[in-house]
Amino acid sequence: MKPIYVLNGPNLNLLGVREPEIYGYDTLADIESRCAALLEDAGHSLVFRQSNHEGQLIDWIQEARTESAALIINPAGYSHTSVALLDALKALSVPIIECHLSNPQTREPFRHHSYVSLAAKGIIAGFGAFGYELAIRAALALLKPAG
Amino acid sequence: MKPIYVLNGPNLNLLGVREPEIYGYDTLADIESRCAALLEDAGHSLVFRQSNHEGQLIDWIQEARTESAALIINPAGYSHTSVALLDALKALSVPIIECHLSNPQTREPFRHHSYVSLAAKGIIAGFGAFGYELAIRAALALLKPAG
Amino acid sequence: MKPIYVLNGPNLNLLGVREPEIYGYDTLADIESRCAALLEDAGHSLVFRQSNHEGQLIDWIQEARTESAALIINPAGYSHTSVALLDALKALSVPIIECHLSNPQTREPFRHHSYVSLAAKGIIAGFGAFGYELAIRAALALLKPAG
Amino acid sequence: MKPIYVLNGPNLNLLGVREPEIYGYDTLADIESRCAALLEDAGHSLVFRQSNHEGQLIDWIQEARTESAALIINPAGYSHTSVALLDALKALSVPIIECHLSNPQTREPFRHHSYVSLAAKGIIAGFGAFGYELAIRAALALLKPAG
Amino acid sequence: MKPIYVLNGPNLNLLGVREPEIYGYDTLADIESRCAALLEDAGHSLVFRQSNHEGQLIDWIQEARTESAALIINPAGYSHTSVALLDALKALSVPIIECHLSNPQTREPFRHHSYVSLAAKGIIAGFGAFGYELAIRAALALLKPAG
Amino acid sequence: MKPIYVLNGPNLNLLGVREPEIYGYDTLADIESRCAALLEDAGHSLVFRQSNHEGQLIDWIQEARTESAALIINPAGYSHTSVALLDALKALSVPIIECHLSNPQTREPFRHHSYVSLAAKGIIAGFGAFGYELAIRAALALLKPAG
Amino acid sequence: MKPIYVLNGPNLNLLGVREPEIYGYDTLADIESRCAALLEDAGHSLVFRQSNHEGQLIDWIQEARTESAALIINPAGYSHTSVALLDALKALSVPIIECHLSNPQTREPFRHHSYVSLAAKGIIAGFGAFGYELAIRAALALLKPAG
Amino acid sequence: MKPIYVLNGPNLNLLGVREPEIYGYDTLADIESRCAALLEDAGHSLVFRQSNHEGQLIDWIQEARTESAALIINPAGYSHTSVALLDALKALSVPIIECHLSNPQTREPFRHHSYVSLAAKGIIAGFGAFGYELAIRAALALLKPAG
Amino acid sequence: MKPIYVLNGPNLNLLGVREPEIYGYDTLADIESRCAALLEDAGHSLVFRQSNHEGQLIDWIQEARTESAALIINPAGYSHTSVALLDALKALSVPIIECHLSNPQTREPFRHHSYVSLAAKGIIAGFGAFGYELAIRAALALLKPAG
Amino acid sequence: MKPIYVLNGPNLNLLGVREPEIYGYDTLADIESRCAALLEDAGHSLVFRQSNHEGQLIDWIQEARTESAALIINPAGYSHTSVALLDALKALSVPIIECHLSNPQTREPFRHHSYVSLAAKGIIAGFGAFGYELAIRAALALLKPAG
Amino acid sequence: MKPIYVLNGPNLNLLGVREPEIYGYDTLADIESRCAALLEDAGHSLVFRQSNHEGQLIDWIQEARTESAALIINPAGYSHTSVALLDALKALSVPIIECHLSNPQTREPFRHHSYVSLAAKGIIAGFGAFGYELAIRAALALLKPAG
Amino acid sequence: MKPIYVLNGPNLNLLGVREPEIYGYDTLADIESRCAALLEDAGHSLVFRQSNHEGQLIDWIQEARTESAALIINPAGYSHTSVALLDALKALSVPIIECHLSNPQTREPFRHHSYVSLAAKGIIAGFGAFGYELAIRAALALLKPAG
Repeated sequence: MKPIYVLNGPNLNLLGVREPEIYGYDTLADIESRCAALLEDAGHSLVFRQSNHEGQLIDWIQEARTESAALIINPAGYSHTSVALLDALKALSVPIIECHLSNPQTREPFRHHSYVSLAAKGIIAGFGAFGYELAIRAALALLKPAG
Repeated sequence: MKPIYVLNGPNLNLLGVREPEIYGYDTLADIESRCAALLEDAGHSLVFRQSNHEGQLIDWIQEARTESAALIINPAGYSHTSVALLDALKALSVPIIECHLSNPQTREPFRHHSYVSLAAKGIIAGFGAFGYELAIRAALALLKPAG
Repeated sequence: MKPIYVLNGPNLNLLGVREPEIYGYDTLADIESRCAALLEDAGHSLVFRQSNHEGQLIDWIQEARTESAALIINPAGYSHTSVALLDALKALSVPIIECHLSNPQTREPFRHHSYVSLAAKGIIAGFGAFGYELAIRAALALLKPAG
Repeated sequence: MKPIYVLNGPNLNLLGVREPEIYGYDTLADIESRCAALLEDAGHSLVFRQSNHEGQLIDWIQEARTESAALIINPAGYSHTSVALLDALKALSVPIIECHLSNPQTREPFRHHSYVSLAAKGIIAGFGAFGYELAIRAALALLKPAG
Repeated sequence: MKPIYVLNGPNLNLLGVREPEIYGYDTLADIESRCAALLEDAGHSLVFRQSNHEGQLIDWIQEARTESAALIINPAGYSHTSVALLDALKALSVPIIECHLSNPQTREPFRHHSYVSLAAKGIIAGFGAFGYELAIRAALALLKPAG
Repeated sequence: MKPIYVLNGPNLNLLGVREPEIYGYDTLADIESRCAALLEDAGHSLVFRQSNHEGQLIDWIQEARTESAALIINPAGYSHTSVALLDALKALSVPIIECHLSNPQTREPFRHHSYVSLAAKGIIAGFGAFGYELAIRAALALLKPAG
Repeated sequence: MKPIYVLNGPNLNLLGVREPEIYGYDTLADIESRCAALLEDAGHSLVFRQSNHEGQLIDWIQEARTESAALIINPAGYSHTSVALLDALKALSVPIIECHLSNPQTREPFRHHSYVSLAAKGIIAGFGAFGYELAIRAALALLKPAG
Repeated sequence: MKPIYVLNGPNLNLLGVREPEIYGYDTLADIESRCAALLEDAGHSLVFRQSNHEGQLIDWIQEARTESAALIINPAGYSHTSVALLDALKALSVPIIECHLSNPQTREPFRHHSYVSLAAKGIIAGFGAFGYELAIRAALALLKPAG
Repeated sequence: MKPIYVLNGPNLNLLGVREPEIYGYDTLADIESRCAALLEDAGHSLVFRQSNHEGQLIDWIQEARTESAALIINPAGYSHTSVALLDALKALSVPIIECHLSNPQTREPFRHHSYVSLAAKGIIAGFGAFGYELAIRAALALLKPAG
Repeated sequence: MKPIYVLNGPNLNLLGVREPEIYGYDTLADIESRCAALLEDAGHSLVFRQSNHEGQLIDWIQEARTESAALIINPAGYSHTSVALLDALKALSVPIIECHLSNPQTREPFRHHSYVSLAAKGIIAGFGAFGYELAIRAALALLKPAG
Repeated sequence: MKPIYVLNGPNLNLLGVREPEIYGYDTLADIESRCAALLEDAGHSLVFRQSNHEGQLIDWIQEARTESAALIINPAGYSHTSVALLDALKALSVPIIECHLSNPQTREPFRHHSYVSLAAKGIIAGFGAFGYELAIRAALALLKPAG
Repeated sequence: MKPIYVLNGPNLNLLGVREPEIYGYDTLADIESRCAALLEDAGHSLVFRQSNHEGQLIDWIQEARTESAALIINPAGYSHTSVALLDALKALSVPIIECHLSNPQTREPFRHHSYVSLAAKGIIAGFGAFGYELAIRAALALLKPAG
């Protein structure tokens, strides 16, 4: 069975490192472990990556087009500005889930719009690191009829 | 332990009744059953209601202020137009989760903004009836440190 | 044969009562009589109601989904603000006709947009009480091929 | 008694000719016949014209200022762009009725505003060819007190 | 002499109950008492009500059309969204005073516009519970020439 | 010496005819006479025309490119909507003066912008029929250095 | 005890002089007398001034920073355009009350926004000259806890 | 007979001084002379002033309310920003003419709107110093029926 | 085989005549010759016309609906303002190519939007007279599968 | 003679691979071959590249500044969002041609604006793979006077 | 050698006086001393002034046109609202430097635009009192080629 | 002591190379030398880099989070479009200074807003290469209390 891709956008590599008393002690590695554990039972493996480079994220999304069963993406700052990311996602036929640590609607106005949402099946936002686990569960549920 | 409130806004009573081959065969009653089952293990009970009346929803939100452990709300059409609903929600200190069956960002522009999002801890949108189960899990996770 | 529903929104109960020398001496009851008379020949009965409550209007629209042959609605002030009303109307498969006493395009800018228009087959505006008679005729014409 | 003018704007000459299985088999000539028949009983004659030329339509509206009892106009594409048409209409004291085959509010945003509406007594939209008959009835009703 | 109506919109029933150390210990009942006391000397009685239901508020405004000497309204969240409320108020010939506990201009942008202001003689905002007393005095002053 | 062109846009042929007690008893013919008289002393003749047709006005402007000493234009309703008129005017090297009977800034918002102003040397607005005389004087003053 | 400052912006010196049958016969001097009388009992004196000069008003506001117990300001035309006035007001720690003779929300759109409101504790608008008396009462109420 | 006031706004004192090869060699004094000469025959005297101070201009406009037969104003930079100037002008019942040296519609967007235009009878723009002479002629023409 | 229509909008008749050192020495006639030469080999003839009249252009587009194999249009100033032109074009099933001499995106903002683009298969802009040759080649390529 | 550069933006590497029955069977390699063939006769060689990385595209544009005779660019998703790409292009003195497979004006609103257009000599859009051949011909025509 | 002018806008006279623990203990006099010291070595003297009056600032800017070597201006609240100030600055040929104590882009939206920036050579913002020293250095550097 | 980072965004590598007679003969290497010289006395070293790649700039900003004493950034074209860059900068606690060669407020509207400004302590713009020296001085001044 094909793996589930979890792609993380710019600055998410600082998670758990910068001011953990505020943003939480969960690092991306911790999140990756918990996602992998959740997927194991369902017989799916995990591809979990992060990049600050828009082009790199597009390359990975294109790879996911043929290599993944589903794609979970936290596009971070590129959510609001990248039509190129949107175009890459629209080429996928596997389910796409958009995931945000915080609730963008309570932040600055320029974070209220996400190009990625236009290609996403569903959105999960505001639940911090736990949101990734919800996204994994959602991906598995979306794959069930196909599985 | 206090129950978790799940409030449903206008027209959601038609779920599963109207064109089920398109919108799915899940009725609100089906969703209620699955939410209750999920909550049972966690020792929480469920208050699950629907109304087409904005004022009724506000009354229930005010009730939830003192009677609930957490509030899940699918405000449907009132999401985009009701400042009164937002004000009611801002009076709550329990966690609030906004839930939508479809992804509003792929629909008409007037559905892109939600007043309810301004008071919500987190948002789950686009996963259909399954989104309620994600919301219940999210509520339980948010209550864990307090529990 | 199923009746034709005519629903009237907020403040229309004051018609003919308030400043009749300006707004005309026709009351809603007068309009109801004339609509009923027009329908009688065509073998349709009439359900004619008014409410100031948005939720009540939604309940009635949902009732019309299964109980009416066609729906005529003068949504008054809710035309411009109610997404919930629009959603209720979109669940109907019978013809929907929007009717306004005055021409909203010659009034304040916030009256220029109507959510109800997005679900309406046709619009009749600016002909005062006589507009209801035109709407009845339009409804009958729309039903003719089905009748 | 003066005739009722029915003026038709650009591209309406293609009605019934282009893709009749979609737009209907009614031609402008058919509509003209039905309008004339409706008017005959009321003792009014009909002036029924079409032009693709904005200036021609203005000339006819000016003619209607002194020669008509009422004016029905389907301004088609000029509805949304012609201040000159509006100015011509504002010089009339006879009743003006705006008529559209389709409901412009469900089409592209640039069709949501009509300059002609600013001078119209009433608007009828979305009822196809039958809308002209409603407009004739509306004109007759508006003339009744004067008749 | 006819009473003065004081109508309170959604969520104002929580006044003095929720976080009194922040919003003050004055309940709506306290405010009602003080308003009644102020009116007694002037020979006016008081009708003082609150509802979370937009339709209920419209019903009461219509009642005030014939039963009140003046209307004071704190429309709360409906200020910014209810054209129906505005239409109800425009049917009144008695003086209308809009009253807000806080200064809406220092809050979120969607609170900067009030439909109710379009029908109000005057506005009092930002003085907390004391604002109601100012509103009563203003109402009495407005009635003096008529009294 | 080449004549001065005075071109008048749509509906100006009704000047002095329609409601003269409001708009004044001056007809276009009266204005033409006064302009001709003013020009006679200066040794210029007058070409004075009116059309309701945008294309006709463009043809005349193109004629004025080679045949006139200066162009005065009252574009009426086309002021606000015609890029084609602007483009025709931009091809002229003789002075262009825009003239309006009323002050457009005190009318509807869609009259506040004039494409013609982008090509005009100067603007005269709000002085009624007398404005044409000012425009003639302005044209003569602009020609003086060249004359 | 420090005096209460009442500052009046541009053109208010014409109050009671220009068209008194419309704007009322109260002059600024009359209003000053009534404010002084109201303050006398409370042991406060009054500083009451008017200027057409924005800079002069700023100088006086700065003076009020150290010399007043509270500031009432009717900024008139500067309400809508003066960031400098706002900045001067933000330097004050005494209560600020904004007062308008008319209700700006029922006038031109450019009067709907007031920079001064961003620094004001409360707003009183639409009650004519009587609004100053309400403002004095409001100022005294705001000073009570401090007094 | 009362004099005609010509008021000049900020920076117009530099006219003819700064880069005369570009802006022309006419100084304000030259313009004043020519205006005075034109007025002499008509039996009117001239009051001609300039100030960089908004408040000073307002003071002079108020003076003109009782002392002038007509007011010509070149508000320069204050055209676009001063509601206070507009309010002062609206208190006048004598004719007001707005005059600009250049055509503001061909300059930056923030110069396209003039508050002063809302109170002006007529506008003359783009004719340089000669525009003042046109304005004087326009003022005399407007006074003729009253003279 | 049906001819290819090339329609030219307002002011294009001045091409090559006005300031040829700037706009080039190519006249419309030159362009017509080159287009005809290109089409000859492909066995298509050419219909090449220009008008300043919007209505004339619509008449020709309607003619092209039945008489042409493909339509190339340079709508010039009507690109940005004519919904009527768009409606005429939408009635065609032959390929439509929009052609502009200059690149409108580097000109004034009101030239950035073209109604004609909404009906065009493809757009060629900025290549001057040579753009017509590209458009002919594009038309031939689009017809090849049909040919 | 220097080569002509053809640069392709994000996701264009999927051309011909993804859903060829919809987007066509032409791959970028096919297009490259046809462009090279067209250039051979004219004595120009071809540099043809694609990248998903904005920075890589900028590096190549800078290379083209000194190494190319002309630049053809299909910026895809970066068209609408990249000021950096625009700045790179503005440093070139060789002709720049913007090429799009589809007509962006018929797609989502955020595709209607292209920063790249601000630096392009000409634009070709909507002709699919064939558009590249038109662009090559346009580039050769632009180089002819220099060649 | 001519002095360098440093002009300070409204409310800057309160610097160092109001809440020094927040805004710093530097007064305008302190800043003036440091600027003078910096200029001494370079052989320039200093003219350093503050006013709350827009007109006064314009008068001084006009004085600087002939009397200064360079102008540094902190326009404070007038930055965002004064076209008159901009016009005065545009008459200067000496270098103009705009200086702000705080970074306006991180404050309210109405502070994001500065008319003064349109005439300034350079901008220094956000460095508090030290920004004036940077501005002096910048002015000297700009004068070096001329010195 | 930690170095000061100076990061340069896209296309700045062309500085001094492209059209030096216009943009100046200073290359980035020249600027680097002068910055290093200025820092030497203060005991700070310099890290000076340029990239056309947004992701590379983000990587370097993250490096500066732990390795620098202060960050100076000229984000060039990414200023206006990169939320990701802003997010990276918001993770730094060292002072951030934004530097632009030209004054963006006098260029195209899309350059008026900078996301980077939202995270910057101060801004220096319009002084060309010399602006970097001012930025270095500003950085040293900001570090003084900490040093």
